[in-house]
Amino acid sequence: MVQIPKQQPAPVPAPDAPNSPPDSVPQGTPHSVPTSADVARLAGVSRATVSYVLNNTSAVRISEPTRRRVHAAAKELGYVPHAAARSLRAGHSRMVLMPTPQIAVGPLFSEFINELQWALSRFDYTVVQYGSLGLTGEEAARAWAELRPVAVLAPDAIALGARGVAVLKRSGAKAVFTLGPQRADGAHALLMDQRLVGRAAAAHLLAQGRRRIGVIVPEEPGLEAFSQPRLDGVRTAVRTVEGCSVAELPLAYTEDSAARLVDGWRSLGLDGVFAYNDEYAMLLMRALQDEGITVPDDIAVVGADDLMLARLLRPRLSSVRIELPSGRSLAELVDRVVREPGGRAEVHDVLGASVVHRESS
Amino acid sequence: MVQIPKQQPAPVPAPDAPNSPPDSVPQGTPHSVPTSADVARLAGVSRATVSYVLNNTSAVRISEPTRRRVHAAAKELGYVPHAAARSLRAGHSRMVLMPTPQIAVGPLFSEFINELQWALSRFDYTVVQYGSLGLTGEEAARAWAELRPVAVLAPDAIALGARGVAVLKRSGAKAVFTLGPQRADGAHALLMDQRLVGRAAAAHLLAQGRRRIGVIVPEEPGLEAFSQPRLDGVRTAVRTVEGCSVAELPLAYTEDSAARLVDGWRSLGLDGVFAYNDEYAMLLMRALQDEGITVPDDIAVVGADDLMLARLLRPRLSSVRIELPSGRSLAELVDRVVREPGGRAEVHDVLGASVVHRESS
Repeated sequence: MVQIPKQQPAPVPAPDAPNSPPDSVPQGTPHSVPTSADVARLAGVSRATVSYVLNNTSAVRISEPTRRRVHAAAKELGYVPHAAARSLRAGHSRMVLMPTPQIAVGPLFSEFINELQWALSRFDYTVVQYGSLGLTGEEAARAWAELRPVAVLAPDAIALGARGVAVLKRSGAKAVFTLGPQRADGAHALLMDQRLVGRAAAAHLLAQGRRRIGVIVPEEPGLEAFSQPRLDGVRTAVRTVEGCSVAELPLAYTEDSAARLVDGWRSLGLDGVFAYNDEYAMLLMRALQDEGITVPDDIAVVGADDLMLARLLRPRLSSVRIELPSGRSLAELVDRVVREPGGRAEVHDVLGASVVHRESS
Repeated sequence: MVQIPKQQPAPVPAPDAPNSPPDSVPQGTPHSVPTSADVARLAGVSRATVSYVLNNTSAVRISEPTRRRVHAAAKELGYVPHAAARSLRAGHSRMVLMPTPQIAVGPLFSEFINELQWALSRFDYTVVQYGSLGLTGEEAARAWAELRPVAVLAPDAIALGARGVAVLKRSGAKAVFTLGPQRADGAHALLMDQRLVGRAAAAHLLAQGRRRIGVIVPEEPGLEAFSQPRLDGVRTAVRTVEGCSVAELPLAYTEDSAARLVDGWRSLGLDGVFAYNDEYAMLLMRALQDEGITVPDDIAVVGADDLMLARLLRPRLSSVRIELPSGRSLAELVDRVVREPGGRAEVHDVLGASVVHRESS
């Protein structure tokens, strides 16, 4: 562990300290934050005019020279508008809050979030992410509500519930969305129905003639919201097929756990396995191969997420490819609900799943 | 691509709409956001008393029954304090802004960020992450300054520069830190010197008797801030060793790119390679093995990040393990600088690097 010293060298008094900005940077009032009043004074205009110019108000006509004078004064003083003050005046904010799940997210979801942030910024929203810090339900909602977001996109692992949604709405949020496999009363749902992932994997294994199917269920906390519906999806898919069975296989993301699972593998009598995702699939395949169990002859293996990893394994890994909506279409949806908040709770299925068939199945 | 419909069903008027909270949830004033004045009225106390109670002010003694009455009224109305209003009154916020890099972060960094958020929340800071959306320098600083954070921990890929730091300070930020391989004038630096990663990898390869060393440099944009100093670290490490050479090997994270690189591999005459990280190492190793080039006999391979992946490859991958400071020690540092903002810019080396030797080298 890298150590950061708790003691600091005695603070050095200011004048020539290396953290004062270099001479070329305008200083403004050195020890106070510049305000719109300072900008107004320097530009020789009213505070209202400063506000019209810097907020690009189209309702008021302001001459080009005045506009330029205000911008020049703001720049010289280093003035930036205060988002919170502006939203207090306007009675609402443009902040979209995206609480982040505590689990590490894969490249697909991370790209989706980036694209969504970018698209929302085009609609002039400020997107902030907020670590959930283990809070759930009403408690999480109260922490978020303090920031007075106009919209919230909450991963449903937070389990907001009807009360949490109500807390957010009373604090002024016009649009509350849950993002994940479940719904919350009163919130719009961007349903990411993980059962579809399990169903796609199972349908593929069935089509390959496999009938005794194992499903890896990660033991790591926080993944239940994904693993349980994926397991349910497999169960649903095999229900109508004669002579099929489904075995739940708990697995921690460690070599030891994989070795233990594979130790009694042959007695399980399985011929196909859906490994939760590509990383667990790699862990399992490695343990199977080290034990002399061949893929796909002895056992067909399917992962999920279609990572680059899947193509690099030998045999190449079959994987469920997950599709998410474009950030742009989602940003349009959020903006519409913010502008017309009165409507019914909407439910949008936003997850697609299809198997990429490679050599492991 | 999953489609979200642009047309919506006509909004249904409110009374029995399914998104009104269920009866058991207290309603407050139905169409307005409850204020501290509402809480004061219901509890039969002054607004000042509400503020003292809900902000846990220790300077003012308030009786336990009054305290309980205020909490009960706040709960009944669904009132939550307004962070922005509070910070406007107090003249400063408790918000720590952590702009997030646009590149996907690995599990190590993601865990580090989670731990840091949690530790800062114990010091009563609100940590918000903010997508950088491709903004850099002063422009990024102005966007962040609108949120009036009391502290900023900026990934240095944003290239704040002295001017960006000055913008933030003038907006009231008491502590500006850069987080990454470079420094910015006027900001405190949590230096993550990526050269150490390259140096550790090279020192290990040299110790294994390798002398003609290739260094994978990802072609993906946004990674230069990591890949270039890692390459520099390798160059520094071999400088004093007789007869050593370093070859820069650009590689995109695709099978095609790896196949092209490996196609002319033997003519490069290399005997060791530092593959940037474990994922690029896996991509390279797979391509080498498919071409009949054996690891480590023909070529020693070292990755970085020490992912689980490294242990699952055959041969098992040697990897540079990167260590970051505990979130707690970093939170203490941030809090100290916020409370005593006058000092010199501090530089803390927060990255440790050591090789885990396995079979690939």
